[in-house]
Amino acid sequence: MINNNIKKIQRKIDTDLANIYNIGPERLVETFNYVMTGKGKRIRPLLTLLTSKSLFGDYKKSYNAALAIEILHNFTLVHDDIMDNDTIRHGKKTVHEKWDTSTAILLGDAMLAKSINILSDSKYSQNLIKSFNKALLSVCEGQALDKEFENKQNINEKDYFEMIEKKTSNLIAMPIEIGALAYDYPLKDAKKLFNFGLFIGKAFQIQDDFLEIMSSPEIMKKSLDSDILLGKQTYPIILCNKKNKNFIRTLIKNNKNTKTIIAEIRKFILENKLNIKIKEKIENLYLEANNCIQTIDFQSNDLLNFVNKIKIRKK
Amino acid sequence: MINNNIKKIQRKIDTDLANIYNIGPERLVETFNYVMTGKGKRIRPLLTLLTSKSLFGDYKKSYNAALAIEILHNFTLVHDDIMDNDTIRHGKKTVHEKWDTSTAILLGDAMLAKSINILSDSKYSQNLIKSFNKALLSVCEGQALDKEFENKQNINEKDYFEMIEKKTSNLIAMPIEIGALAYDYPLKDAKKLFNFGLFIGKAFQIQDDFLEIMSSPEIMKKSLDSDILLGKQTYPIILCNKKNKNFIRTLIKNNKNTKTIIAEIRKFILENKLNIKIKEKIENLYLEANNCIQTIDFQSNDLLNFVNKIKIRKK
Repeated sequence: MINNNIKKIQRKIDTDLANIYNIGPERLVETFNYVMTGKGKRIRPLLTLLTSKSLFGDYKKSYNAALAIEILHNFTLVHDDIMDNDTIRHGKKTVHEKWDTSTAILLGDAMLAKSINILSDSKYSQNLIKSFNKALLSVCEGQALDKEFENKQNINEKDYFEMIEKKTSNLIAMPIEIGALAYDYPLKDAKKLFNFGLFIGKAFQIQDDFLEIMSSPEIMKKSLDSDILLGKQTYPIILCNKKNKNFIRTLIKNNKNTKTIIAEIRKFILENKLNIKIKEKIENLYLEANNCIQTIDFQSNDLLNFVNKIKIRKK
Repeated sequence: MINNNIKKIQRKIDTDLANIYNIGPERLVETFNYVMTGKGKRIRPLLTLLTSKSLFGDYKKSYNAALAIEILHNFTLVHDDIMDNDTIRHGKKTVHEKWDTSTAILLGDAMLAKSINILSDSKYSQNLIKSFNKALLSVCEGQALDKEFENKQNINEKDYFEMIEKKTSNLIAMPIEIGALAYDYPLKDAKKLFNFGLFIGKAFQIQDDFLEIMSSPEIMKKSLDSDILLGKQTYPIILCNKKNKNFIRTLIKNNKNTKTIIAEIRKFILENKLNIKIKEKIENLYLEANNCIQTIDFQSNDLLNFVNKIKIRKK
């Protein structure tokens, strides 16, 4: 599937999400549509649809699930943004910033409610529903670990990978698995696709954190500031602290300006060749991902091409 | 079923809820169990189980759903307590008060996640899942209306009943409906039970608000203070404002002390015989509830006796 086709699907998703919740309490409908018309890349629903397309040449059956997944993803963003004090998301003010915390809490709840209603109204199998629900609980647990790890100095790579597997990878793996389960694909093979997703989810996350910290201040995302100040654990940060136990803590103590802190981290990464280690880790995760799907019989390369497109992105 | 048996079921529910989530991120497990071991009356799961018992002489099949419903109910309390700034719930500090807002948001999300996982792990029918999910969305919408109505002076009885039907009654009606659906009861008859629940839910809510405002300060719940100051709409408040458009607004403007405000409201209610009007309304709602279930063939009176027990409560 060429890029134009992906754009076409993205546009269809955008249109359908903009029309999915129009009758309800005024503030809820307004904020729901404010969030769902944000400039998200729709990666998760695309993973669902392209998995279906690659396996079955079609994605009609997984389409509603894909919409539910995108709403679920946005629910996690609305609530995480409150917890992380983020003020900007997809180029717009976050809900708790533009309205207030109560509005954002309630909107998140309603988004989650809407997403599971879409699923139960679409007569999906129990296996598909289970996959969705399990991922949701994982994401909550991952977010809990993420908050627990803030400002803890002794988080090792194992802890970190457990956390992002729950928080990030599950919301990559489940959409792929559901692209298969919507067509009653054998559970055993769906599980292989799920495991593939867990690995690429980790690779995506590390790439994201690495690109963000290494990018120039002009294209750097606003959220990095708050991440640094909150003491968020990312793979680059963990490698820095492994090299020098008190590196980040000392940097934050000695510098008020996050731009200076980030520049120092960047310098430290390059001086210690941590950039090479990070790139190797990412490469290994992609290899492990591919090992999971050796026996999967794809009809087309739509899914793998899309994953590759994300892999080679520069921002 | 005599009172002793109800107490026995309550104890079983308490024990099972205290053991339902023990492996997970530390803070999440701690707060989950803090909330689920609070002194809730377990009304909603009892409604489910007693519906099953009354219709089928047994409640094994609906038991897991009843636990999921109680967790769902507690999720709504945790998030509502943040939005309403409540500091005490079931005699303990609220989660956002004892920990912080982030912890309470995340706990609520995880409770909701846990509840839908219990359902999907229990192989319930699509109709049962649909009933649960629909009620969840209603509750969110009801809470949104409740917040929208705060400090609005022109809320009439129709608006008010729409709000509590969504916010309160759905979480009474759905548990009853699910007590029937867990045994594959015909949808048409389950709907009658649902409508019965909508009416008794409204009666419960009005009774609650009335008892709270008329009770002596010693047994008055802490949350009434915040409700009054937030300008929460309740049936007694709406009747007061109907009698005198600016009654509550003027009271709040002229009095700093909520105890004085509440005493004035109580006096106004008695002087204008609004207490009689409120009691009549409650009685009518119970009559309408009973009309819904004329054709339902109960094997025992367990459900109706329990509803009556709530009806005749004095606090």
